[in-house]
Amino acid sequence: MSRIDGRTAEELRPVSIERGWSKHAEGSVLVSFGDTRVLCTASLTEGVPRWRKGSGEGWVTAEYAMLPRSTNTRGDRESVRGKIGGRTHEISRLIGRSLRAVVDFKALGENTIVLDCDVLQADGGTRTAAISGAYVALADAVSWAQEKKLIKARAQPLTGTVAAVSVGIVGGVPLLDLRYEEDVQAETDMNVVCTGDGRFVEVQGTAEGEPFSRDELNGLLDLAAKGCAQLDGVQRSALGR
Amino acid sequence: MSRIDGRTAEELRPVSIERGWSKHAEGSVLVSFGDTRVLCTASLTEGVPRWRKGSGEGWVTAEYAMLPRSTNTRGDRESVRGKIGGRTHEISRLIGRSLRAVVDFKALGENTIVLDCDVLQADGGTRTAAISGAYVALADAVSWAQEKKLIKARAQPLTGTVAAVSVGIVGGVPLLDLRYEEDVQAETDMNVVCTGDGRFVEVQGTAEGEPFSRDELNGLLDLAAKGCAQLDGVQRSALGR
Amino acid sequence: MSRIDGRTAEELRPVSIERGWSKHAEGSVLVSFGDTRVLCTASLTEGVPRWRKGSGEGWVTAEYAMLPRSTNTRGDRESVRGKIGGRTHEISRLIGRSLRAVVDFKALGENTIVLDCDVLQADGGTRTAAISGAYVALADAVSWAQEKKLIKARAQPLTGTVAAVSVGIVGGVPLLDLRYEEDVQAETDMNVVCTGDGRFVEVQGTAEGEPFSRDELNGLLDLAAKGCAQLDGVQRSALGR
Amino acid sequence: MSRIDGRTAEELRPVSIERGWSKHAEGSVLVSFGDTRVLCTASLTEGVPRWRKGSGEGWVTAEYAMLPRSTNTRGDRESVRGKIGGRTHEISRLIGRSLRAVVDFKALGENTIVLDCDVLQADGGTRTAAISGAYVALADAVSWAQEKKLIKARAQPLTGTVAAVSVGIVGGVPLLDLRYEEDVQAETDMNVVCTGDGRFVEVQGTAEGEPFSRDELNGLLDLAAKGCAQLDGVQRSALGR
Amino acid sequence: MSRIDGRTAEELRPVSIERGWSKHAEGSVLVSFGDTRVLCTASLTEGVPRWRKGSGEGWVTAEYAMLPRSTNTRGDRESVRGKIGGRTHEISRLIGRSLRAVVDFKALGENTIVLDCDVLQADGGTRTAAISGAYVALADAVSWAQEKKLIKARAQPLTGTVAAVSVGIVGGVPLLDLRYEEDVQAETDMNVVCTGDGRFVEVQGTAEGEPFSRDELNGLLDLAAKGCAQLDGVQRSALGR
Amino acid sequence: MSRIDGRTAEELRPVSIERGWSKHAEGSVLVSFGDTRVLCTASLTEGVPRWRKGSGEGWVTAEYAMLPRSTNTRGDRESVRGKIGGRTHEISRLIGRSLRAVVDFKALGENTIVLDCDVLQADGGTRTAAISGAYVALADAVSWAQEKKLIKARAQPLTGTVAAVSVGIVGGVPLLDLRYEEDVQAETDMNVVCTGDGRFVEVQGTAEGEPFSRDELNGLLDLAAKGCAQLDGVQRSALGR
Repeated sequence: MSRIDGRTAEELRPVSIERGWSKHAEGSVLVSFGDTRVLCTASLTEGVPRWRKGSGEGWVTAEYAMLPRSTNTRGDRESVRGKIGGRTHEISRLIGRSLRAVVDFKALGENTIVLDCDVLQADGGTRTAAISGAYVALADAVSWAQEKKLIKARAQPLTGTVAAVSVGIVGGVPLLDLRYEEDVQAETDMNVVCTGDGRFVEVQGTAEGEPFSRDELNGLLDLAAKGCAQLDGVQRSALGR
Repeated sequence: MSRIDGRTAEELRPVSIERGWSKHAEGSVLVSFGDTRVLCTASLTEGVPRWRKGSGEGWVTAEYAMLPRSTNTRGDRESVRGKIGGRTHEISRLIGRSLRAVVDFKALGENTIVLDCDVLQADGGTRTAAISGAYVALADAVSWAQEKKLIKARAQPLTGTVAAVSVGIVGGVPLLDLRYEEDVQAETDMNVVCTGDGRFVEVQGTAEGEPFSRDELNGLLDLAAKGCAQLDGVQRSALGR
Repeated sequence: MSRIDGRTAEELRPVSIERGWSKHAEGSVLVSFGDTRVLCTASLTEGVPRWRKGSGEGWVTAEYAMLPRSTNTRGDRESVRGKIGGRTHEISRLIGRSLRAVVDFKALGENTIVLDCDVLQADGGTRTAAISGAYVALADAVSWAQEKKLIKARAQPLTGTVAAVSVGIVGGVPLLDLRYEEDVQAETDMNVVCTGDGRFVEVQGTAEGEPFSRDELNGLLDLAAKGCAQLDGVQRSALGR
Repeated sequence: MSRIDGRTAEELRPVSIERGWSKHAEGSVLVSFGDTRVLCTASLTEGVPRWRKGSGEGWVTAEYAMLPRSTNTRGDRESVRGKIGGRTHEISRLIGRSLRAVVDFKALGENTIVLDCDVLQADGGTRTAAISGAYVALADAVSWAQEKKLIKARAQPLTGTVAAVSVGIVGGVPLLDLRYEEDVQAETDMNVVCTGDGRFVEVQGTAEGEPFSRDELNGLLDLAAKGCAQLDGVQRSALGR
Repeated sequence: MSRIDGRTAEELRPVSIERGWSKHAEGSVLVSFGDTRVLCTASLTEGVPRWRKGSGEGWVTAEYAMLPRSTNTRGDRESVRGKIGGRTHEISRLIGRSLRAVVDFKALGENTIVLDCDVLQADGGTRTAAISGAYVALADAVSWAQEKKLIKARAQPLTGTVAAVSVGIVGGVPLLDLRYEEDVQAETDMNVVCTGDGRFVEVQGTAEGEPFSRDELNGLLDLAAKGCAQLDGVQRSALGR
Repeated sequence: MSRIDGRTAEELRPVSIERGWSKHAEGSVLVSFGDTRVLCTASLTEGVPRWRKGSGEGWVTAEYAMLPRSTNTRGDRESVRGKIGGRTHEISRLIGRSLRAVVDFKALGENTIVLDCDVLQADGGTRTAAISGAYVALADAVSWAQEKKLIKARAQPLTGTVAAVSVGIVGGVPLLDLRYEEDVQAETDMNVVCTGDGRFVEVQGTAEGEPFSRDELNGLLDLAAKGCAQLDGVQRSALGR
């Protein structure tokens, strides 16, 4: 059975990571997972939030948002509505946690990095694209800080790499990296965040229809692990490693 | 190695489910997982939100909140701050999704049930206690509606049962049903929602410190499945089945 | 003429004050006036709001809220609506003022006590139950602070006791401690806050239908004074005095 | 003992009620109690809020606000802060209730009148001036509606008149109509709303310092009743009755 | 062709500037452009916003608002809606910029002046009346500060005078100082802020219907310059210069 | 005197208009004025806001926003702050008015078009780039609607073209199309919106430092008119006319 775009079940969409997209940000990336396009900027400032002052440790956080017409029908702006929706909150927190998993805050020193992930065009997998792209923007911001001597020589604020992918069961078949049309039909939907060495940072699986069995869960985890490993390669290649 | 309260790694805290706690609500439960106490009420009203009108289908949703001094230090009221925090949003959505997984909306008819889960005292596992208690309140509200003939005779709006438990790795050891003190030390933290027949509705695992391996993930899933099965027994017994 | 629950016009509902309800708070009480149940917690923290710093004086304030399904039909959460309603504001302020009337802020020292009064079940008289219960929680928090030496030896931060009761005219008859069904029928509705020595801290009378005469007002004040004196007894007995 | 402005204890400040202050509103009054100046406008629109539609009855409501520099030091605008404070809420509700006490909603028909009371200059007693002025604006709006035939011929939407005054105990002496400097020194502060026939619509007494005795309360009520009777005269004269 | 109120095309409405309207504010003016009436108060406080501390320079800002029934139909209160509308924002910013154009912040020293412009009655030209009146209130606040020695002797914080007027093309004819009924018919609408020496501080022209030509723009600018010069005279005369 | 990027005073930055940037929107454009990049999408939906229903006329509106790190230092998200700032409000309104100036609402029929202008990278002139780009997105959305037969055959909803440019006086010299570094130094700053036939839709000039003379104003208007004419050419060429 072939997918709407001709991919096999275990295939990622074409992934691209374009660095240096913004002239202002310390790190910036335009990441594409097929038609999903997310602009990720990393803003580094000296100093940390009040609750962390004097600790000698830095902080990394993230904010996610969708442009109103990044989707098929226009959504209201959260700034106009005057509050952030639950989904936005959830994804911002997920991105922040995922990146913090590979940061050594002592090595970062009392610096703060904010990752802004703004979805310019959405076609499924916006949060996984955001995490995967934000990691590269973060790496660039860290390099910038090392050049500017804001971080101690030989300090290694990044302890690893991190990437994310979605998997799901559609028509009984586990698929990798779902497009929007697949996502809405999925019986089970899962987002998995892995480090480059194949361990898990976050696993979030949800039954959209029928509950799923342990076997199905295992199948999805296998698929996700493979997808993350491929994304790790794309990230390394983008970073010229 | 014994735990702070003397439990074994695979043991739940004492769980109690007190039905009929409120005289107003169609279903109401005070659920305790040890010192964690959550008041769950189910409010059933005829009619559905606008986007569902005329569909012949009902709706189930949930709201979670903590009383300001349910925790060790007092938290600001979200009503006073004028907005709901990300964590509250996330948990409210999780509870709603978990319960909807066992609802047949056709059988429910155009009725809406809102589950309010208010944490009176917190000691870890508030979201899992909330889901496990809310299920019983939901079941009571459905029975009430059947008696009142708001639901068609022989309709079975509940397709199964649902319960939730937290698991985590503390000091390298996988533990079931974490108390607050265990939760803050956990390297990995996972919330698992299961149906009574042992399938998964939601799996949310997060590395708080080191990323976790596939083996560790498997160990946690095993533990969670056992815990959910025990909770299913407590729910059935509370419901007199 | 007997009342819906068989009481005489001058009779309180069964009142209970359960201390130590929460393991976290410095003082906590579950107070019941019949079916009205309010959880009152007192949170004591060292320090005072900015405008009071360096004064050597403490501060006491209160917040009141109703759980969404504490009432017969579910009310929207104020946190979800993003703002606090006028009634909530009014009652929070009333509780704060009532308690401050018996506090010696010099003796309290630069400590702040916040009383949270959350209505778990409402059946009329929630604000008067809240004040009566919050006093006991406040007394417990003060005792706790004395044991912890946060308050100077021999300091007496409480200059008296305070309790509150509602009265109203229903069908031309003045009644003590109205239940919800009586409250909605009342032509005149009055909340009275008294100190244990029989003086007034707050008197709030409102004509819901016809304006009321001076004689009617006097009759209500007599009734309220008696009710408050009885509540003072219940408080003293709860506190083991 | 004479007061700061030379009045006796039982004397009102000079009161003026200037009708027709605004060219747009159906009723409008600039009311002064000494240096306290409040602009009261009555806006009448056909139709009622949704919850009252089809009842054949009208509705009256009020909103109170202070201009930022109506007071001695500038206060933040509530529109800029994005929320209404508790005091504003409380007074808006008080004004609305006070006026509704003399309205026959059947006679008003399905029309809505909003009273806006904006304090241009404050020197104590802003809420009592607002109620007293708003009554006259309301009467003018009703007359306007009668002329425009929006209200049935011979319908009498106003069943009486209403006025309000503050009283308080300062230095042990009960005083009528407190100025700001007296208000801040008052041990007890009371706002009383009366109908023209001498009955009570609202009585709100608060101990700012020591609790007050029944005798003190009685003294204040006597004083307030006299003050309201005088204000009734001023209102009648302003209305040319 | 004569205008609705009999004026010629180049004529201002009767303008009055009443100083000392409020007893609390450091400067206060009730300004009228015909039936448009705006209360302008200037509040001077020592100190500056955080971002300006230590600069030795002062700050001037403005807030504009309309009373709900200043207009023909009642508008919602922005405080009740919980947010400020775009028009309010725009005009507040315009007033602030206009006044700052004639302030020497070094000479003002680290003092802040807030101009509150509250429209009591609106009939077109509220923003231009607000600017013209606020300038006089500002001048009075500066004089007050000089008397109080809050500003250095011989410092001249005001470098000039500023006034504003509206012009527009109605039925092909350029008109000065539009009333509301003219404003709604205008094809082009322009607000012009000038200094007393005839230079421009702000020019805001908008085509409401057809775009306007360079010639039309020139005609409007000529008219506005004349109007501002006349307003400058009214301001000087109000200030007794 | 040459400018920081080598342009002459009367020269635009390189301008590009990339159509069809988004796969979802009915019209979409990535417009660049040098390093200023704005994504403009046009969302067309059938139907109009409530106040326009049944009129047979359509509606066009706009929303402007900046990504947090589109600027040199990161700005807070307005969605997180919970309200829209004054500048955002002002620019959104300006864009909407500018586009409506060339729309025939009768010809558009009861359809609504929302223009979202999101600044991806800012370097001065974001509002003028937004207007110039939004016009092209609007034109594409209109064409789309004509193809889909949502608009009557032969209806011409666009009565002209519209473009905008900034001009300013820097160091006494009038410059066209200011970059950010020029903008912050400008003594006078002006944004001008013109139709393709050289008439004015909006003229907004502000003295940032010294007030400006009529001659200076004339010089700026000449420059702006030339700039708009060039932009009109770029738009036509982008649209293939």
